[in-house]
Amino acid sequence: MTSPQQHQRPDLLDTDAVLERVAARLADKFAGTFNTETVQRYVFESYVALYRTASVRHHLTALAENFAADRLIALAQARGELAKPVPEVLFLCVANTGRSQMAAALLAHRAAGRVHVRSAGSLPGHDVEPPAVEAMREVGIDIAEAYPKPLTDDVLRAADVIITMGCGDACPVLPGKRYLDWPIADPAGATLSAVRAIRDDIDARVQLLITELTTEGTTR
Amino acid sequence: MTSPQQHQRPDLLDTDAVLERVAARLADKFAGTFNTETVQRYVFESYVALYRTASVRHHLTALAENFAADRLIALAQARGELAKPVPEVLFLCVANTGRSQMAAALLAHRAAGRVHVRSAGSLPGHDVEPPAVEAMREVGIDIAEAYPKPLTDDVLRAADVIITMGCGDACPVLPGKRYLDWPIADPAGATLSAVRAIRDDIDARVQLLITELTTEGTTR
Repeated sequence: MTSPQQHQRPDLLDTDAVLERVAARLADKFAGTFNTETVQRYVFESYVALYRTASVRHHLTALAENFAADRLIALAQARGELAKPVPEVLFLCVANTGRSQMAAALLAHRAAGRVHVRSAGSLPGHDVEPPAVEAMREVGIDIAEAYPKPLTDDVLRAADVIITMGCGDACPVLPGKRYLDWPIADPAGATLSAVRAIRDDIDARVQLLITELTTEGTTR
Repeated sequence: MTSPQQHQRPDLLDTDAVLERVAARLADKFAGTFNTETVQRYVFESYVALYRTASVRHHLTALAENFAADRLIALAQARGELAKPVPEVLFLCVANTGRSQMAAALLAHRAAGRVHVRSAGSLPGHDVEPPAVEAMREVGIDIAEAYPKPLTDDVLRAADVIITMGCGDACPVLPGKRYLDWPIADPAGATLSAVRAIRDDIDARVQLLITELTTEGTTR
């Protein structure tokens, strides 16, 4: 505990104990659906996956718990062991720091429970971009606590509709799912006023999508 | 099977069947160490993790089998369920397309069985860079078949020595391991002659490392 290197970097001596408690809690929550080994692997791998790209690591065990729990829910949904009462939409972009975060938040907000939303990135970035946070705040939606997540097999399989934005074919095509590609400008490095236009472009598409998903029952 | 989209992209209808067979094969191989659910998750998540960033996807199920099998071996080693007859060294850089691939190949070649080597990236790139492949070919080492892999919890825990090259603190600090940071120039976009100098810099360090690991028994 006293080497210089361990002073410079977060130490997993304590983190491991926290992650073990997280795993025990989730194993309890998912008892009957997933065995302890699966839950443990989800927690520890989710932690390292977020650690690789996160710029701030203070709340990383909490984020790893959140991410692992959501992935386990997705896997249970994909296997038909957990009901999907509403359509599941997955937004994908490269970094999961701008477009896909705004789209997920706008859809969740506008759908108000009629659709469930996830987002991920093919090459997750460090943080949600401040102009995106600010542009969303202007319309009363808080994404300051959102965090970039890598695309995983579980959330892909849980989705009914997969919407890509600028990440090309970064996700495999699965049967029985609907794929859409939205040509949305990249907010990375853009001015706040440009990000507002991107937000409004996404918002218009999101509102059309809700109408479609809730009136046609296309995905169920 | 006939929608335009499914013609444009690799189709998981067939891929899923291949991955199921891979999972069955590995479940058999790791019977008594890991349960089927764990092995299946490793195979499917490894596939999507490689798919996200791979530029060529022809052999991706084979690479996913290779990656999943190696990760399961690492996990068994980390848990003490599989012996580590020689020190395990993990090289990390950002993209796992240049430095860490050259270092891993040089160490494996020079150590000739006295050390076992893995490599990974904090933000894996698309392909191992052609000048790196060429510079290694000049010294009789073929890395044309190497592929970029994201850092995962299992390989991190299996390592005795973790060597970072330009990726800062992209990996959590675990107790009982040795961390080294090698200040190696980045071969990305460099000329072949610059990559040769990088190769030779890595090679000199690798040879010192072997002497250290095989004479001191520092990691065992």
